[in-house]
Amino acid sequence: MLIVMESQTGEDKILKVINFIKQKGFDAHISKGESHTVIGCVGRKVIDKRDIELLEGVKEVIRITSPYKLVSRVFKPDDTVITVNDVKFGGGNLGMIAGPCSVETLEQVDETARKLCDAGVKILRGGAFKPRTSPYAFQGLGEEGLKILRQVADKYNMAVTSEIMEVSHIPMFLDYVDILQVGARNMQNFNLLKKLGEINKPVMLKRGLSATIEEWLMSAEYIMSGGNREVILCERGIRTFEHMTRNTLDISAIPVVQKISHLPVIVDPSHATGLRDKVAPMSKAAIAAGADGLIIEVHNNPDCALCDGAQSLHPEEFAELYKDLQVLAKVVKKSF
Amino acid sequence: MLIVMESQTGEDKILKVINFIKQKGFDAHISKGESHTVIGCVGRKVIDKRDIELLEGVKEVIRITSPYKLVSRVFKPDDTVITVNDVKFGGGNLGMIAGPCSVETLEQVDETARKLCDAGVKILRGGAFKPRTSPYAFQGLGEEGLKILRQVADKYNMAVTSEIMEVSHIPMFLDYVDILQVGARNMQNFNLLKKLGEINKPVMLKRGLSATIEEWLMSAEYIMSGGNREVILCERGIRTFEHMTRNTLDISAIPVVQKISHLPVIVDPSHATGLRDKVAPMSKAAIAAGADGLIIEVHNNPDCALCDGAQSLHPEEFAELYKDLQVLAKVVKKSF
Amino acid sequence: MLIVMESQTGEDKILKVINFIKQKGFDAHISKGESHTVIGCVGRKVIDKRDIELLEGVKEVIRITSPYKLVSRVFKPDDTVITVNDVKFGGGNLGMIAGPCSVETLEQVDETARKLCDAGVKILRGGAFKPRTSPYAFQGLGEEGLKILRQVADKYNMAVTSEIMEVSHIPMFLDYVDILQVGARNMQNFNLLKKLGEINKPVMLKRGLSATIEEWLMSAEYIMSGGNREVILCERGIRTFEHMTRNTLDISAIPVVQKISHLPVIVDPSHATGLRDKVAPMSKAAIAAGADGLIIEVHNNPDCALCDGAQSLHPEEFAELYKDLQVLAKVVKKSF
Amino acid sequence: MLIVMESQTGEDKILKVINFIKQKGFDAHISKGESHTVIGCVGRKVIDKRDIELLEGVKEVIRITSPYKLVSRVFKPDDTVITVNDVKFGGGNLGMIAGPCSVETLEQVDETARKLCDAGVKILRGGAFKPRTSPYAFQGLGEEGLKILRQVADKYNMAVTSEIMEVSHIPMFLDYVDILQVGARNMQNFNLLKKLGEINKPVMLKRGLSATIEEWLMSAEYIMSGGNREVILCERGIRTFEHMTRNTLDISAIPVVQKISHLPVIVDPSHATGLRDKVAPMSKAAIAAGADGLIIEVHNNPDCALCDGAQSLHPEEFAELYKDLQVLAKVVKKSF
Repeated sequence: MLIVMESQTGEDKILKVINFIKQKGFDAHISKGESHTVIGCVGRKVIDKRDIELLEGVKEVIRITSPYKLVSRVFKPDDTVITVNDVKFGGGNLGMIAGPCSVETLEQVDETARKLCDAGVKILRGGAFKPRTSPYAFQGLGEEGLKILRQVADKYNMAVTSEIMEVSHIPMFLDYVDILQVGARNMQNFNLLKKLGEINKPVMLKRGLSATIEEWLMSAEYIMSGGNREVILCERGIRTFEHMTRNTLDISAIPVVQKISHLPVIVDPSHATGLRDKVAPMSKAAIAAGADGLIIEVHNNPDCALCDGAQSLHPEEFAELYKDLQVLAKVVKKSF
Repeated sequence: MLIVMESQTGEDKILKVINFIKQKGFDAHISKGESHTVIGCVGRKVIDKRDIELLEGVKEVIRITSPYKLVSRVFKPDDTVITVNDVKFGGGNLGMIAGPCSVETLEQVDETARKLCDAGVKILRGGAFKPRTSPYAFQGLGEEGLKILRQVADKYNMAVTSEIMEVSHIPMFLDYVDILQVGARNMQNFNLLKKLGEINKPVMLKRGLSATIEEWLMSAEYIMSGGNREVILCERGIRTFEHMTRNTLDISAIPVVQKISHLPVIVDPSHATGLRDKVAPMSKAAIAAGADGLIIEVHNNPDCALCDGAQSLHPEEFAELYKDLQVLAKVVKKSF
Repeated sequence: MLIVMESQTGEDKILKVINFIKQKGFDAHISKGESHTVIGCVGRKVIDKRDIELLEGVKEVIRITSPYKLVSRVFKPDDTVITVNDVKFGGGNLGMIAGPCSVETLEQVDETARKLCDAGVKILRGGAFKPRTSPYAFQGLGEEGLKILRQVADKYNMAVTSEIMEVSHIPMFLDYVDILQVGARNMQNFNLLKKLGEINKPVMLKRGLSATIEEWLMSAEYIMSGGNREVILCERGIRTFEHMTRNTLDISAIPVVQKISHLPVIVDPSHATGLRDKVAPMSKAAIAAGADGLIIEVHNNPDCALCDGAQSLHPEEFAELYKDLQVLAKVVKKSF
Repeated sequence: MLIVMESQTGEDKILKVINFIKQKGFDAHISKGESHTVIGCVGRKVIDKRDIELLEGVKEVIRITSPYKLVSRVFKPDDTVITVNDVKFGGGNLGMIAGPCSVETLEQVDETARKLCDAGVKILRGGAFKPRTSPYAFQGLGEEGLKILRQVADKYNMAVTSEIMEVSHIPMFLDYVDILQVGARNMQNFNLLKKLGEINKPVMLKRGLSATIEEWLMSAEYIMSGGNREVILCERGIRTFEHMTRNTLDISAIPVVQKISHLPVIVDPSHATGLRDKVAPMSKAAIAAGADGLIIEVHNNPDCALCDGAQSLHPEEFAELYKDLQVLAKVVKKSF
């Protein structure tokens, strides 16, 4: 940490700051510039920088060590590649996940999965526990939904991902699901993250609606610090002033994250835009910008979907898009 | 719901829309204007308005019934007054809650509580389970912290509020705590909200960092729909582009909420600003704007606080502020 | 406009609303639903909807006619194609603009332009009047800068675009510049927009830092309503909470604008990200999402640039990127 | 500026950075910490910190000198007090400005001003040139409006403030107006700011819709650096995700600005909230938080206002509010 003193601060105040940080267990390195004295604050203790900022004569306190460790390329320079059902995410490999927003019936999931399987998809998504703003909205089928997902996935040789909202559900999810998904609203549900750090299956961590990239990576750090090294980051749009799309997909987050972190980062264009006709252009943009994969909502009959039908592709639309994406992938020297 | 058709839409498209909503279980009332046909969509079913927006010829779909019921003044016109340890929130009464950010030691809590008690405070706050962005930061004392709070509160005849982060902790909290606090990061932890709807103690619901007032009220609706009618709303600052304060306290949320909802709304100026010297002006602003109470961080020795010392008042500063606020309260015809 | 009355509003209040809007010059069409009466407010006058919302019994007032006319596809269904120096923007054609952030010296512009010309670029960008947050920062060379741009462009058979900040500069710009650029900070400088509506050269209108798409289109409407039909929209990033990039490039704005408006929309990845190594991925993402062109900062010696060198490409980096983009363009069935 | 090098950066890279900044005209002071080498970069030249951040081995570059000088309390520790028509803003004095949003007719302004004069107001506001999002909305009466304002103000011994949008209008405004107001949309119209720095009348500078406090102060610096030392800052709400109010009034900006700057800061609760019934609570909040004055919209007949009637107070409502505010002012030891 660097403590910048106000210009022309007297020696007495500088000494007080030094004593303060020494008392907190840090060493102090003083450097006098032309206009400002800067105190380097060295040590491994944790201190709230605002505590120092309140001391007299202190102009600014600057944190210089990154708050994340395990997620960082400093810790692990090479790309983490996560493999699920032969699908690889990261390291030049593109992964595709598709399926309905919510599990509604066996028939719906079966028909959707069959068509996705025909299109070459190997990981099926589907919501069984739904985070809904209103207590009066459809909340998902619960465990019954997970059972349907598993049954259908097994039939078509697919893997399954579904959203988990609650610590006590972890054992249940481990029975049915191959990738446990943490939704945007739970990105800072720290107890859930800690517990997911103790399991042996990949976790897909969505970015919170107004989370910074640093906060997102810190949430991944929670999972990794528990021992689970398989985290897939998922950009799904952030809240902005623009209301013509549900959220604003932050495509630039892809190269930013990839520079800092070794973890794969995929994109969810369906939730980000909330509009079916924007899914194709944003999927292409994501791949062109270097994303490590996509998660796309597909429903066998979107007009009758119980949830988010408006942003779901018809299986035929998806199949066509997937072909286009495979051509595009070659241009950026990757492949699904 | 109102469905506005594009101007010059043919009868066939209008009919398709009518059939679509009838199939979904709604009645249709058609109204032809000079430029636009408007279809009123009447019924009690839930439908995603984007599903209709995707139909051909539809210009816009407008929801006209409020999504909240129990929290609304339409449901209950009179102010809800919540009483804890003789302190009343709402209906012209002002409640004061104060205490340290985190419980650190028995001595710290005892000394702080004693001074707060002398100043006239009857409800003690203190964090035992702390939501921290970093897994490496101090996470709170856990149940030991709740024990300390209870022990000290009993000694000084105070009530206790503390933040709960996890469904499985509810029984523990019911043993020690009088008001269960839901933090900003858990405002949309819907499972937690549902379970808090089933208890018999007041819940203080903080507004999420980038939540709209409507989303905040919907989260309160989750609690109320479970049967618990004692919800205190707490405005604690929203995320904006301004970085000179930790967050931006949305003072105008106070009169806005009070017009729509019968629930009391209090303000947390300490977390909102993150800066000790901004707590007094923002506390005064909140009371002047009509808030039903305050929750303020006070620490017996802020310079040594393990968490958020920078925003904590010294007990003496607090006592002086509390006196000023009592004078101010009279001007707006209320009292603590 | 639709006026939704509160449920169970008495006839007298409904009548008062009807009288109010009639007095303002509108016709009223009443439609009684099961729970709400809706009054259609028909006419060509302008009225502030909040004036109606304040009347007793009114629940909500909803505007149903779009505020933009000339920019809309309803007014002109086909893509507007804007041609400058044989470069076409829109209608399946991609335009490329490149050059330094600021004009510094004749040598700098000449060397940069020569290399851009070799790479196939036909429109040169360069700032002569710079909008700087600080009065103490380099403000540009002024008219001298425009002269340099023109001289160099003529030498290499290029067209020129540069930012205009001030109504009184229009005649000067018309002497030197082929596309007049309105910067993000002047997107709502309405006097400037009006005057640019009266000229005979294309205007490139950048989106404001926190402008919605609707506000952006309304600013284009200002220009078009003056008679100038040649407006190129330019997405250059919006302000969000993310600080790892200078702004957040809103890629989804491309398909959104293209659906509503016939005007071409290009992307400025350099200002959006503020970082050289993010320019390539974001340029590719923009083209993949359907943008009608790009404007990219290139400097012959970025390390010595007086302004924004950090986001400028070396001419060699640009040439390589441009080749990649031409391959990518074919995949989305367009060409530069 | 402080340049923090990555840990374990080799001597060669450190030397390159030192050479780079020396070449740019700065001195270098090296300080080696346990984990990081920090290079102090000392000098008066201007450099874009991103240029340094792009050098190999550089972790972060931190600006430590404030970008503003003249607006800062370091430059002038005592409050600036600005006096207009015996009304003082700043230094413990509260100023009140009131009047209609737009000048419509002589009668309207006369009747409003007469009632405001009776209530004790000495500065009249009124818009003659209106910044409107739509080119089809009422744009104001122009110079005719300024004439009406002056004529009425002279009759009641009042001063006048009105918004200026355009450099070429300055001489006209100097003829009629006592305080020249810069609107939110023009906060970064730097040419206008520069020219207003050369006049001899006070300027009221509104904060931009999504401007940070630092950007706002830098715009004030533009005016002051031209020689005009009479700048009144006006907080008028910032854009946030909350849509139940037009904008979010940032009350905490008041104490934040007052700590950094000697300039008076007033509040516009009418534009901030956009709703008449929120003007009183927010006016009180502003005074309680320490604002140096208010500017409030009052219209003799708000229901017939051509602009923003919905947020305008009736003269009687205003008179009552003004009395309440005078009582409140005493509590914070100030007076109008």
